Amino acid sequence: MSYRVGIVGATGAVGQELIELLHRRNFPMESLTLLASKRSTGKTITWEDKSWVVEEAVASAFDGLDVAIFSAGASTSKELGPEAAKRGCVVVDNSSAFRMDADVPLVVPEVNAHAMREHKGIIANPNCSTAVALMGLYPLHEAFGLKRFTAATYQAVSGAGASAMQELVDQLHAWAKDEPLKVEKFPHQIAFNVLPHVDVFYEDGYTKEEHKMLNECRKILGLESLRASTTCVRVPVLRAHSIAINAEFERPVDLAKAREAIAGFAGAELCDDPAHNRYPMPLDYSGKEKCGVGRLRIDSALDNGLALWVVGDQLWKGAALNAVQIAEELHRQSALA
Amino acid sequence: MSYRVGIVGATGAVGQELIELLHRRNFPMESLTLLASKRSTGKTITWEDKSWVVEEAVASAFDGLDVAIFSAGASTSKELGPEAAKRGCVVVDNSSAFRMDADVPLVVPEVNAHAMREHKGIIANPNCSTAVALMGLYPLHEAFGLKRFTAATYQAVSGAGASAMQELVDQLHAWAKDEPLKVEKFPHQIAFNVLPHVDVFYEDGYTKEEHKMLNECRKILGLESLRASTTCVRVPVLRAHSIAINAEFERPVDLAKAREAIAGFAGAELCDDPAHNRYPMPLDYSGKEKCGVGRLRIDSALDNGLALWVVGDQLWKGAALNAVQIAEELHRQSALA
Repeated sequence: MSYRVGIVGATGAVGQELIELLHRRNFPMESLTLLASKRSTGKTITWEDKSWVVEEAVASAFDGLDVAIFSAGASTSKELGPEAAKRGCVVVDNSSAFRMDADVPLVVPEVNAHAMREHKGIIANPNCSTAVALMGLYPLHEAFGLKRFTAATYQAVSGAGASAMQELVDQLHAWAKDEPLKVEKFPHQIAFNVLPHVDVFYEDGYTKEEHKMLNECRKILGLESLRASTTCVRVPVLRAHSIAINAEFERPVDLAKAREAIAGFAGAELCDDPAHNRYPMPLDYSGKEKCGVGRLRIDSALDNGLALWVVGDQLWKGAALNAVQIAEELHRQSALA
Repeated sequence: MSYRVGIVGATGAVGQELIELLHRRNFPMESLTLLASKRSTGKTITWEDKSWVVEEAVASAFDGLDVAIFSAGASTSKELGPEAAKRGCVVVDNSSAFRMDADVPLVVPEVNAHAMREHKGIIANPNCSTAVALMGLYPLHEAFGLKRFTAATYQAVSGAGASAMQELVDQLHAWAKDEPLKVEKFPHQIAFNVLPHVDVFYEDGYTKEEHKMLNECRKILGLESLRASTTCVRVPVLRAHSIAINAEFERPVDLAKAREAIAGFAGAELCDDPAHNRYPMPLDYSGKEKCGVGRLRIDSALDNGLALWVVGDQLWKGAALNAVQIAEELHRQSALA
């Protein structure tokens, strides 16, 4: 059985990737409907030799759809997600709207596909940094039992959307022409700078993005006792997030076993040959389905600790790819049911 | 008494900053001699209305100098440092050549000026990342007793010298003109990329730069039991290093006390007002004497833990400024002697 698929937020940065990945991965589609806000209604979107006219994302648009991938921000998801679910269209939601709802499974298919079986019409896709971090942390957790971690991110501008990516490009073009740089999308200039500020700040001094890393990792791993502290930082990179992680485990760690665990994990590849200057970098992991894990070493600060460096395309594994993988898993599970 | 001062490596990135800082800070100079390799001998260096002809850095050049600041790499320091010291010229060495020698004090004046009293002709300046990290860690150590920390750096290209800075500039100009990018100084393209690779790799998977952070912090703080694990990363920023730190302390931490400790410390300023998007950034801390400390929060992963974000001009506090401060302290201590 093929699915009638919808994409909400089809004109955004992640929407474009969704169209590409659904096709590249030969997702069993009977039809594809592109939905967006009123502003984008009527636009034509093309991919290779195919084209679609964008329709307005309203409740009735989900009648007759089997699955809809939402990537238009939390308020759209909150408004239309339940409407879609009510109409029998399973929602795969890329926003933060439902991630922490007890009723909504939060899924990275390589980690907790089983959680999807209990879905009630909405399945949530994790935050980009969480998904990328887990591609390094999960296989190590399986091997040694994750206890806590500290992390610092190097997040690409496209994580803030297509217009944020354009802002870095525009600033660098202006710089090259010796013209003044415009700052609109980010609170400060991003060219030649780094901003320790992704998403809004909370009372405790952490940002929402930093909270997500802890809370979503706990939920996906089913590990309520997990402790984590992250500093999320925007860097002048166009695409792919990098994360430096120091992790402490329940059981003694072993480097050979750790390398084996990562190399054997579907979501990651081991890219760790410092003698030949091989380690994951955002330029190499843009447009790549697997995340790269490298700089693996016995941690000199933590007991039973490992330090690692994970890089992944946040528009793919951190968003569109993971959502498509959820839809694929949904299809697989219904075929089995 | 004024000093007859020499700079070895006067034509390099740090050398230029040394000339500026010695003048800006009104260092008591009777004379300034600029020394460099044979290749640069005879070049004229100017600063404001002053100019100097570069002389060759050979042993006899140190006859008659009181203090020489070396910033020409470890091999030059190893060759000429002891020669200068033998001639009664105190060496302030910016390279890694002597930092871990038991005989050589490794000094950040705000932290351990007392260690200079025992010098035997050579005083070492710490690595840039170490000096910047300590501007956040030291006041907190004083308040709560540092036990261990994890850190991830965001290091500017100028840390690798003037030619590395030029490489980023050239790559971005080439990109803006749609021309191919040249990679020479760094092992990979640095524009639009981050490289988890600063200095050479060791057997244990850490880099020399990452080892320095632990070993130099231990020596400067006189804290042999300190544990630390750092990931050092090069980012496409021209100047000033940023460091995300998670630190665990011996005693319970208190946020108000931590803020007070930083605000009261000579080497740093508290820049921590997230509600108004105020946090330290490399663009704001380039050409600034104090390092900025912000994003201060109770750490959610470590016991008695604090998370913080430190930014400092690595050519200044991480190199030239700290060296000049050592020379100033030397002058102060001899005046008192």
